Amino acid sequence: MHIDVITVQPDLLESPLSHSIMKRAQEKGLLTVKLHNLRQWALNKYGQVDDYQFGGGAGMVMMCEPLVNAIEHLTKDGPYDEIIYMTPDGPRFEQKTANTLSLQERLLIICGHYKGIDERIREHYVTREISIGDYVLSGGELAAAVVIDAIGRLLPGVLGDETSALTDSFQDGLLAPPVYTRPAEFKGWKVPEVLLSGNPKIIDEWRYNQAVERTRTRRPDLLDE
Amino acid sequence: MHIDVITVQPDLLESPLSHSIMKRAQEKGLLTVKLHNLRQWALNKYGQVDDYQFGGGAGMVMMCEPLVNAIEHLTKDGPYDEIIYMTPDGPRFEQKTANTLSLQERLLIICGHYKGIDERIREHYVTREISIGDYVLSGGELAAAVVIDAIGRLLPGVLGDETSALTDSFQDGLLAPPVYTRPAEFKGWKVPEVLLSGNPKIIDEWRYNQAVERTRTRRPDLLDE
Repeated sequence: MHIDVITVQPDLLESPLSHSIMKRAQEKGLLTVKLHNLRQWALNKYGQVDDYQFGGGAGMVMMCEPLVNAIEHLTKDGPYDEIIYMTPDGPRFEQKTANTLSLQERLLIICGHYKGIDERIREHYVTREISIGDYVLSGGELAAAVVIDAIGRLLPGVLGDETSALTDSFQDGLLAPPVYTRPAEFKGWKVPEVLLSGNPKIIDEWRYNQAVERTRTRRPDLLDE
Repeated sequence: MHIDVITVQPDLLESPLSHSIMKRAQEKGLLTVKLHNLRQWALNKYGQVDDYQFGGGAGMVMMCEPLVNAIEHLTKDGPYDEIIYMTPDGPRFEQKTANTLSLQERLLIICGHYKGIDERIREHYVTREISIGDYVLSGGELAAAVVIDAIGRLLPGVLGDETSALTDSFQDGLLAPPVYTRPAEFKGWKVPEVLLSGNPKIIDEWRYNQAVERTRTRRPDLLDE
């Protein structure tokens, strides 16, 4: 999979993409992520990529022309399966979105900044809008990093068995059950007996019941879906 | 505000915390964020902080003792208003959570990794669990960066007027209206006439109606709350 990212803050994304699972995915050649500074396509020598919004009000808006120039330049290397815009008013990113996107070959992600991008780009170029949650960030960069991480770890071969994604929260519509490790007793707090039983059948049953109970008390909305 | 972060991947968080708004917040002395490598409190010279889970199954679990040693060491500098654990099975982070947390003085954020932390730490030390959304990431680090960014930009004095948070999505329970900037016509696509009218009253009205309409079509659930 190849992901291009258009941003005015490429440096911000450097460390999240070069450590841990993302590093492993790229070293194994399973994922390439390329950051593109939008200012390369700026309209003037001051690197201008934004301007005041029509109608007045606080906050700059990212202009059409630099974005279109960037998109057209990058598309020359091959068409994108999706041109994604990170924005808090987009549909919320969920595990199933990650699953779907992990099957694509080439993605372009546009990071908003300031008040966002000119609406005409959203109407005419963007094929999918994504919000990572109901809150506002300084820019789309961290949101893009979140999406890339969630997708990247699903690519076959990226995770070792030790971090298998199959038992994660949401993959089966339930929250994950509680986990414990050694020591069996710490400060007088004991691990549930059943986990020490060595009986895989009753352990699985206990975990399933815990997952259901935890979902019922914490996130009943997930059970309604 | 001061935020301590306990992580096994401190390097991953470096660039998001040292650019853009986060850089500005720290330079202005309004926010300090300190990353602490959990391996400092490891149990042995191999830096062990995790172990196999009781009951079997894929995925390592972060052990009680290094975490408790870290929490106790860091608490010596003063009590925390909240000890937060980033986990996909926690309550979902929303703008109002960001608003609430932005009023605190001292926060400790624990980043999970692998299968998460031993449940006993959640029961006995953690005061607030946060999920940034219904998806699974490689670790809690990016989630912590998201929370720190969302909180940090709300601290008085961090944002300049040009990026005022007051007109952001969610602050008034509505998605933001579309934004446009020059040129007024691009590739034949025109900016809505009303925004060029120069009449603040009808512009405000248009924006409000657009925000309501956009929320109704994209996120009707927000209007039910």
